[in-house]
Amino acid sequence: MKFIKTPVKGMCDMLPSDMRLREHVLSMIKKSYGQYGFMQIETPIVEHIENLTSKQGGDNEKLIFKVMKRGADLQRAIDKGTGEYADNGLRYDLTVPLARYYACNKEKLPSPFKALQMGNVYRADNPQKGRFRQFTQCDIDILGDDSNLAEIELITATASMLTQIFAEINITDFTIHINDRRMLSAVALCAGFAEEDIGSVLISLDKFDKIGLEGIEKELIENGYPEETVGKYLAVYRAVKEGITIDEFCQDIGEEYLPAKVKQNLADIIGCVRPVLAQGVKIVFDPTLVRGMGYYTGAIFEITMDGYNFSIAGGGRYDKMIGKFSGQDVAASGFSIGFERIVTILKDHMEGGYQLAGEPTAYLIGNRVSLERKAEVLALARELRAGGAIVTVMPMAKNIKHQIELLENEGYKKFEKIYE
Amino acid sequence: MKFIKTPVKGMCDMLPSDMRLREHVLSMIKKSYGQYGFMQIETPIVEHIENLTSKQGGDNEKLIFKVMKRGADLQRAIDKGTGEYADNGLRYDLTVPLARYYACNKEKLPSPFKALQMGNVYRADNPQKGRFRQFTQCDIDILGDDSNLAEIELITATASMLTQIFAEINITDFTIHINDRRMLSAVALCAGFAEEDIGSVLISLDKFDKIGLEGIEKELIENGYPEETVGKYLAVYRAVKEGITIDEFCQDIGEEYLPAKVKQNLADIIGCVRPVLAQGVKIVFDPTLVRGMGYYTGAIFEITMDGYNFSIAGGGRYDKMIGKFSGQDVAASGFSIGFERIVTILKDHMEGGYQLAGEPTAYLIGNRVSLERKAEVLALARELRAGGAIVTVMPMAKNIKHQIELLENEGYKKFEKIYE
Repeated sequence: MKFIKTPVKGMCDMLPSDMRLREHVLSMIKKSYGQYGFMQIETPIVEHIENLTSKQGGDNEKLIFKVMKRGADLQRAIDKGTGEYADNGLRYDLTVPLARYYACNKEKLPSPFKALQMGNVYRADNPQKGRFRQFTQCDIDILGDDSNLAEIELITATASMLTQIFAEINITDFTIHINDRRMLSAVALCAGFAEEDIGSVLISLDKFDKIGLEGIEKELIENGYPEETVGKYLAVYRAVKEGITIDEFCQDIGEEYLPAKVKQNLADIIGCVRPVLAQGVKIVFDPTLVRGMGYYTGAIFEITMDGYNFSIAGGGRYDKMIGKFSGQDVAASGFSIGFERIVTILKDHMEGGYQLAGEPTAYLIGNRVSLERKAEVLALARELRAGGAIVTVMPMAKNIKHQIELLENEGYKKFEKIYE
Repeated sequence: MKFIKTPVKGMCDMLPSDMRLREHVLSMIKKSYGQYGFMQIETPIVEHIENLTSKQGGDNEKLIFKVMKRGADLQRAIDKGTGEYADNGLRYDLTVPLARYYACNKEKLPSPFKALQMGNVYRADNPQKGRFRQFTQCDIDILGDDSNLAEIELITATASMLTQIFAEINITDFTIHINDRRMLSAVALCAGFAEEDIGSVLISLDKFDKIGLEGIEKELIENGYPEETVGKYLAVYRAVKEGITIDEFCQDIGEEYLPAKVKQNLADIIGCVRPVLAQGVKIVFDPTLVRGMGYYTGAIFEITMDGYNFSIAGGGRYDKMIGKFSGQDVAASGFSIGFERIVTILKDHMEGGYQLAGEPTAYLIGNRVSLERKAEVLALARELRAGGAIVTVMPMAKNIKHQIELLENEGYKKFEKIYE
């Protein structure tokens, strides 16, 4: 019989110390968002293959783990010979299941609905350091709210959550970057790009952090856009200085490209969020923030930790996306939290891993201990546990030093050796 | 585009009230077992198809959701035409992954290792009331302990966990049934059955609760066993009275069938467990307890709630099972907790579902409210949240009565309507 000891390629076994840290972070996330009125929901990890391949998932659709049909269904598919052997697949994100969930359960949910989802997603990607084929995603979304209260609540809740989690390792400085998809479009249109080119232009602008404005200019021209248009377009971004205001940035973009209410909306979000942020956290208008996904329709935002060159959470408004699935438009905005990234950063900063609280005690029972004595120890353990302590009772190993070392690794602090 | 709103057949969307209850039970389980020194671990839900089809999983192997090969691997399989299109599958229990996990990570884990696993498993069973294709299992296992301290800790920890959970709905009376696989075999051998018939005889005895001794007698004779052997065998069980002791039950079974240490072991477990049980919980020797799985090798046990005719947790010692997977025998015993059953019972006893604690407050903001007023409310909400309260801020709906009703369903108690 062939038995494979390692986990499936790209997926992880979680050791007790991994689990302690992950559970700790999960519980802080739940508590934090719970206080902001987000309600936890869960969808099956198995999803209809039709929903996963509806062209809303972008490149992720190429990475689906497909689940085979069974029994007579499978036989029929084989007989047909069209190669359609899968009826289900493992979800590659939490957004497709959320759209399905909301379409299915809308009537039973408060409106607007503030959802918190935490769960595993699956992508048959090439595994590499920090990228796995099973990983945990954490999304918060507000459905059915077309006002900017949604963005305000998403941003303040997430900033508060991150502040609490990272306070434990003395990281307190975060920056919330905010922009608006409609402003990005307006700049491009105003410079002379056609409506249908905006997606491609933004793909280039999104590389700002990597290749700078020079690189973007080169790429746009290589892509065949007129030099004049490209020049006019990038001039707007060349003029950007740290601390630029929305009005300063937009001064040359006419109302026909950018309605005043879009600017006002962004200013209002910043104005409402700023006063409720913790010390060390700031919110800045960032005109070069793009965020990859094409489905955003309004405000977009990202949170970075000062001193790290990656974002730890990102999201935006996507009012047209759920409708593409369910046929009925629903105002929606959301934030996706980089759970695995948070865990990795915490782990890097915690020597010896995340430990059990208190003074866990191990009673190690020798093999000559009488039944009466054993019963005494068990009664004592029961008392201590009733008082809230962590107590383990186990047989003493032959190599007691090694046994104690391994228990110490897991946070055990007191050892009572019972020889007889 | 075809979009399917309902979840995949046999799987469930969890509403916020479902999640609150499930999370509450999960956290009580974690806390309770955590205090007994069980350490949480996690394995991927995707497992090697070889490991899932190794003939240790019994009938569950027929119910595997198979995950298709991808890319070149899939093409090769199709070209070969042998129908082997799957390289992975979704796990159908937590035991196979535990065996793999222990084989893979043993060196890093304390010995003995007390594991707590909670996770979803998948079976392509025919869905029916209370039976799903994705459901949560909760297993505790002690690996590497061949002493009866393992059984004692498993049973006391589980009794303590159940007592705490069910105290909330005023159920306090549980019975722990205990028996030993070797005693079941001894009775059969002593009556004259052959070693190789024990499995089949025990399948009949396992139906005691359903068909009684008369039914078992009929079935054994129909199965072709000699009337005399059957008569002698069942006479032992006919003599069983409530409160029968191990010695009374075993008096006619010779040492050659049943070594004294097996009886002593069972008596010791009962003797050590009994004094540490909470009021209302009892442990009884139950000579007709069989438990289906053939892999048990020693003590077996089950917990029932008095007044309910099903078990809520069950397990036993299975010293030979991990070795069948990994090639190296490991002393092992475990308890599987009926998580879904616990959740269902609690739900049935809780009118209005499991509610949020405290006095959750909703601020409902009218559409004429100024930016300044909105900022005031947000600052107030921030204060209340910092003090531990659950506060949601959302736009007031047109149908405010319905909006409040739905929020009340989720446990909101206070509503502040801000009109301007």
